[in-house]
Amino acid sequence: MTWIHDALKRLPTCDQSAAAAVHTRAAQVLRPNGALRWLDEVAEWIAGWHHTAMPRIQAPAGLIFAADHGVAAATEISAYPTGVTEAMFNAYRQHRSTITAFARLAGAQVTAVDVGIGVPTGDIRYEAALDEARFADVVEAAVAAVDALDTDLLVLGEMGIGNTTPSAAVAAALAGGETAAWVGRGTGIDDDGLERKRVAVQEAVRRIAGITDPIEVLREVGGAELVALAAATVAARLRSIPVMLDGYVVTAAVLPLATIEPTALDHCMVGHCSAEPGHRRLLDRLGKRPLLDLDMRLGEGSGAMAAVPLVAMACAGISEVPTFDEWFDGSG
Amino acid sequence: MTWIHDALKRLPTCDQSAAAAVHTRAAQVLRPNGALRWLDEVAEWIAGWHHTAMPRIQAPAGLIFAADHGVAAATEISAYPTGVTEAMFNAYRQHRSTITAFARLAGAQVTAVDVGIGVPTGDIRYEAALDEARFADVVEAAVAAVDALDTDLLVLGEMGIGNTTPSAAVAAALAGGETAAWVGRGTGIDDDGLERKRVAVQEAVRRIAGITDPIEVLREVGGAELVALAAATVAARLRSIPVMLDGYVVTAAVLPLATIEPTALDHCMVGHCSAEPGHRRLLDRLGKRPLLDLDMRLGEGSGAMAAVPLVAMACAGISEVPTFDEWFDGSG
Repeated sequence: MTWIHDALKRLPTCDQSAAAAVHTRAAQVLRPNGALRWLDEVAEWIAGWHHTAMPRIQAPAGLIFAADHGVAAATEISAYPTGVTEAMFNAYRQHRSTITAFARLAGAQVTAVDVGIGVPTGDIRYEAALDEARFADVVEAAVAAVDALDTDLLVLGEMGIGNTTPSAAVAAALAGGETAAWVGRGTGIDDDGLERKRVAVQEAVRRIAGITDPIEVLREVGGAELVALAAATVAARLRSIPVMLDGYVVTAAVLPLATIEPTALDHCMVGHCSAEPGHRRLLDRLGKRPLLDLDMRLGEGSGAMAAVPLVAMACAGISEVPTFDEWFDGSG
Repeated sequence: MTWIHDALKRLPTCDQSAAAAVHTRAAQVLRPNGALRWLDEVAEWIAGWHHTAMPRIQAPAGLIFAADHGVAAATEISAYPTGVTEAMFNAYRQHRSTITAFARLAGAQVTAVDVGIGVPTGDIRYEAALDEARFADVVEAAVAAVDALDTDLLVLGEMGIGNTTPSAAVAAALAGGETAAWVGRGTGIDDDGLERKRVAVQEAVRRIAGITDPIEVLREVGGAELVALAAATVAARLRSIPVMLDGYVVTAAVLPLATIEPTALDHCMVGHCSAEPGHRRLLDRLGKRPLLDLDMRLGEGSGAMAAVPLVAMACAGISEVPTFDEWFDGSG
């Protein structure tokens, strides 16, 4: 029994009355009823988790978990060498990266958290990615990272050379179907590398065939940043902070939560649909519609951060626009 | 021969070398090649019109043209009375509207321009929407409105109760096909109203069956704000200002430009795909892919304004992120 298992049993629910108040106000605001449809639903979603009928996004924050992977160190499954994880991590910290450029425009702070750079996980083909002690340490670090934030919208991202391979293993193990359908080119691996990825994922999935606990699956064939993402998602829920999920890796990382508790991702939206083919399949399975569909495949939380202004606009469309009655009373 | 006809013969083209420089830099920036794919193309597009290899969006501006329609005054083709045009216009001016709330978050100024509120156009079923003198006046006002702006990204929007009817008439007359396929519910007309819209559009299109000049079609069955939108689009092009188009009405308004000169909309992107069914058909015809697809159907430029942060991010992804060489030289 891990912290995640325990927390999943005591998840807070959203404030239905706040969401309902936004639903009512949306029909009265100074525009045709239903003109913003989906964005009004986004505002309802924020309202429910913020416990307010007048939602606003004022302090979005990005959290990027970075780690290295034993399977990537052992066999060539990525277009990039594992050392790139650390180089990118430094770029995030020095605000010299795509995600930090996006975040500046979204008015968001970005924190990059090292949960295993240069300390690769076990090679998932042959052994558990994380033993129980390291799993617990990573969960603790992720929860602490969330608890250190003062934010009203948490954007989750990741960096870890090779991490679409463990993501595919988690997805294949929990969602089933053809293993190959969960394996894509990641940052752009060639045909031979793609075949190595497929084989690696098949070996990992076969190795854990007897394991049924989704969190154990994550520990066995995931990776440190994937575990951190799952823990951070739960930690945000405990504080009623809405979460914007990013692409394939982030979505695969939280799949174990929804597999155990179908309502576990109610506080999450998905920022974008990645060009990594498995992502759309995962989103269909989770019943999540992505706000953006821009052919992005970067990770770093970039697709989720790109969606933040839309959430802020959705809330402003409720809280900063008068109703017909307010407008005509005020001006008439 | 109108100002629009004349201007369409002397359109500036984009700076191919600036766009090519962005294309080259996009492949060197500190992320996997192709990871932002479409957003990199958006940055190339801005670079080409801004004549710079390091594009940035720093002063987006919205321009909303508002007017009333004779056909809406004469028969019930909208869910709202024509007086709402003026009420909404006042809301834009006082920053108490959806578009102004969105614009604040996008860092944009919004200017609302009255090109015929309370001065309805002719009923397009029986007469020209605008005579030649009024057409010229509206064009002049629109060009002046664009020329008064200091902006690096122009967002075009509109307000005019009933204006999806003239939009459908312009689209049907120029793009052909089943008239009914161009007619949707606008702000939410009921079944009877939808049928009245169809009949009105059919009557208007039939009335101008002999007219082949697309600008004449716009003058005959369009509306004042549609003419203004077409003129503003051309005026922006003459100043090499990129334009973000909004929904069905804006796209229908610029269709005559592309019908005369296929490159006339090269400086335009489309912010979103509207829930008004004719919009997707128009976008397919124009070969434009919308950045957003959020089921919106508001007008006001709201869908275009919602896309502005994405354009700013696309540019920042080129101009504010180092290349691999810059990064490793600087830190190594």
